[in-house]
Amino acid sequence: MKHHKLDSSDIFFFKDLLKDAAFDDIENRTNYSHDHTEDLSVIPGIVLKPKSSKEVASILQYCNEKSIPVTPMGARTGLSGGAIPTFEGVALSMEKFDQILKIDENNHQVTVEPGVITQVLQEAVREKGLFYPPDPASKGSCFIGGNIAENSGGPKAVKYGVTNEYVLNLEVVLPNGEIIWTGANVLKNATGYSLTQLLIGSEGTLGVVTKIVLKLIPHPTHDLLMLVPFYSASEACEAVAAIFKHGIIPSGLEFMEQDALLWTQEFLGDFSLNVAENHAAHLLIEVDGFDLEKLMEDCAKITEVLEGFQTDEVLFAESQAQKDALWKLRRSVGEAVKANSVYKEEDTVVPRYELPKLLHHVKRIGAEYGFKSVCYGHAGDGNLHINIIKGDLSDQQWNEELPAAIRELFTEVVALGGTLSGEHGIGLVQKQYMDIAFSEASLNLMRGIKKVFDPNGIMNPGKIFNS
Amino acid sequence: MKHHKLDSSDIFFFKDLLKDAAFDDIENRTNYSHDHTEDLSVIPGIVLKPKSSKEVASILQYCNEKSIPVTPMGARTGLSGGAIPTFEGVALSMEKFDQILKIDENNHQVTVEPGVITQVLQEAVREKGLFYPPDPASKGSCFIGGNIAENSGGPKAVKYGVTNEYVLNLEVVLPNGEIIWTGANVLKNATGYSLTQLLIGSEGTLGVVTKIVLKLIPHPTHDLLMLVPFYSASEACEAVAAIFKHGIIPSGLEFMEQDALLWTQEFLGDFSLNVAENHAAHLLIEVDGFDLEKLMEDCAKITEVLEGFQTDEVLFAESQAQKDALWKLRRSVGEAVKANSVYKEEDTVVPRYELPKLLHHVKRIGAEYGFKSVCYGHAGDGNLHINIIKGDLSDQQWNEELPAAIRELFTEVVALGGTLSGEHGIGLVQKQYMDIAFSEASLNLMRGIKKVFDPNGIMNPGKIFNS
Repeated sequence: MKHHKLDSSDIFFFKDLLKDAAFDDIENRTNYSHDHTEDLSVIPGIVLKPKSSKEVASILQYCNEKSIPVTPMGARTGLSGGAIPTFEGVALSMEKFDQILKIDENNHQVTVEPGVITQVLQEAVREKGLFYPPDPASKGSCFIGGNIAENSGGPKAVKYGVTNEYVLNLEVVLPNGEIIWTGANVLKNATGYSLTQLLIGSEGTLGVVTKIVLKLIPHPTHDLLMLVPFYSASEACEAVAAIFKHGIIPSGLEFMEQDALLWTQEFLGDFSLNVAENHAAHLLIEVDGFDLEKLMEDCAKITEVLEGFQTDEVLFAESQAQKDALWKLRRSVGEAVKANSVYKEEDTVVPRYELPKLLHHVKRIGAEYGFKSVCYGHAGDGNLHINIIKGDLSDQQWNEELPAAIRELFTEVVALGGTLSGEHGIGLVQKQYMDIAFSEASLNLMRGIKKVFDPNGIMNPGKIFNS
Repeated sequence: MKHHKLDSSDIFFFKDLLKDAAFDDIENRTNYSHDHTEDLSVIPGIVLKPKSSKEVASILQYCNEKSIPVTPMGARTGLSGGAIPTFEGVALSMEKFDQILKIDENNHQVTVEPGVITQVLQEAVREKGLFYPPDPASKGSCFIGGNIAENSGGPKAVKYGVTNEYVLNLEVVLPNGEIIWTGANVLKNATGYSLTQLLIGSEGTLGVVTKIVLKLIPHPTHDLLMLVPFYSASEACEAVAAIFKHGIIPSGLEFMEQDALLWTQEFLGDFSLNVAENHAAHLLIEVDGFDLEKLMEDCAKITEVLEGFQTDEVLFAESQAQKDALWKLRRSVGEAVKANSVYKEEDTVVPRYELPKLLHHVKRIGAEYGFKSVCYGHAGDGNLHINIIKGDLSDQQWNEELPAAIRELFTEVVALGGTLSGEHGIGLVQKQYMDIAFSEASLNLMRGIKKVFDPNGIMNPGKIFNS
């Protein structure tokens, strides 16, 4: 697809349309050149901050006619490069879509704009006793619209499911400027193809989401949190499936390798947790519900399961402050690893019982190619974040040999019944591996769908598909 | 799309390919001419019963080259005409795909062929303590493949969600004979567009599902069931949202108008239930879980909520036999109404708080057009099955005026935030109303997607789309 490079008449059009919500100065353009993915950035031609569906429609219609690339942007906290304006053009920031339009307590639904911070949304509905569970590590800064673009998960997904289980209906601006609703505000829907589900996880490549209707559930009233040190990382992984096999569904079941925890303590300057040298890994286990006694029983059952494994003393969080500190530790791992070294993060996901095998392959391939890795993630979902650390690797090794190692790793992941990304998306940095997860026939279907929505290829070009 | 009518060389090809699993005698063709939708039927040119993905691929490839229509068929229990071979051609019965391939207790997953009866699947996984919740009224006869084609629900959906929340991965034969897997066997997936979700509810118009990987959950150990008679149907509907507003999520919350219950008692010859003349409607309410005491508390809370409404004495089921009898009554309503009169069934769904308004519109429009209706359904989901009874209406009224009444009804449904079908699908009988639920832009996207999968239009033609 041949893209048109922005010229002065385009800049004039956008400034005329959006007035002081169009920015072509280098400072703004640089600010909107990257997300949280590694050290990647591309400077867009202009940054636009519309505030209505109609403005988005005018922008897209113009870009569609002129073949100008458009990269929709949320809070730019993404980890797969989905918000990097790879082909320059328009950076379309949705930050002014920041209103919670309606909390419908009668139907347990909320209508929200895409630029609302996920945690802000969660807190607003919680005031009504309601719960929106998906909570990516970045929930304090990411946008709900970005969560929909990437089908985000987070720690609660293990019990409550990921974003796509909560989205009922979307208002979407199509590349030709038409505005549609994808579904209806209902809990069950067998009315035509699910455009709603198709849009979720489409990473801004099909259209721009401008309104979102979400399902809510009653907010649990109690939770308990425990941290379990294991002498073997592999045993920690084995314990995960064992807990589920005993009929318990925790509301969080997180895995952290030793370095993940140590580096995060360092990063936060908080050494209150006593991580012994032989604590190879930890599981952070949360249960939640409406009945404290029942939760105590669940914890007792979990403790019983853990007796089958070699663990050190279990830490039960005794106060809200201690719970918050433990979750802060867990939520900061990504940032801490990032601060420590140049890295690449893989977002592998496998059936949860296969986690020990996945970990084995990570370390085996690391040994073979000479890289160190730090692993952590949502073990209850089989979702392991693998941070590959540049450390002493040469640029040549990093740039030329590492992709072969990652390819080998993903091949093992897929052989285990897993896939490339559990919650970060494919974006820019994983697209070269899509052929491992999908046959050419499947990829052609996806490319065909893309073309139905976006025949001129203006929506977030260069993402998901390698060609 | 110009379809090719089967000729003797086609019949020869199919008989040569499938041997004694190809049937062109009139008895078999007549058997496969209909599903459970009203009194509609079209006789196919041939009935094929393949037993492998490879055989399905050979059939589709041949039909695709020759433009022969293919109608995939499950147990033909559908209620929207999705399995009627509208354009004759091939009736592709999946009944020989009847194997449960693997119950994976380690990962709480099952791999199953599409021709397995839903209840058979449920019972097989229950033996391992596992639960596959979606349970359409026809669960004793319908196929799991059909459930996926229609994104089926059932009474448990109110707590556990519909089919699409349980499908992890699908093997699908595309119209050109290529065989793909749509996803991976994982609980979270942000890897490209969700072909899995797109296939669910696509009513056999995109490809033929040949293997299914489902998520399972631990089976609840206890349940309690209560039947509540209301003096006003509208109040019964109001009580539904009130129960949820008190933080309770029942595992079943069913609504039945008086006639629904009376006709079903008649149909089953079981008059053990004392339905008084002034019992305008009943709610059947189930709670389930792992802790009997907690469930008793839930029932107490529900009883408290019900005190705000005019009800007669609540019946608590005291034995498994009584629970079974009540559920049998509820599950037989559809058949009972069908046995009583020529009818049309609408599968409306609205946000649950809007149910009283929906019921009001049903009766208002009925009065205006002179038809009687019997309503029942999954009130907890806002899903109301409306059976319009022919009774004394003339054929002219039935065929010419009724569609205008239904159009008026659906228009109100959509205005309430609802849509045409909650769980039955669009198929043949609702397609003329799709323009009420979707803009032309949305319908064009769906048509475009159809074309990507099925450029020659051989897969279940005449369904979902009016043109």
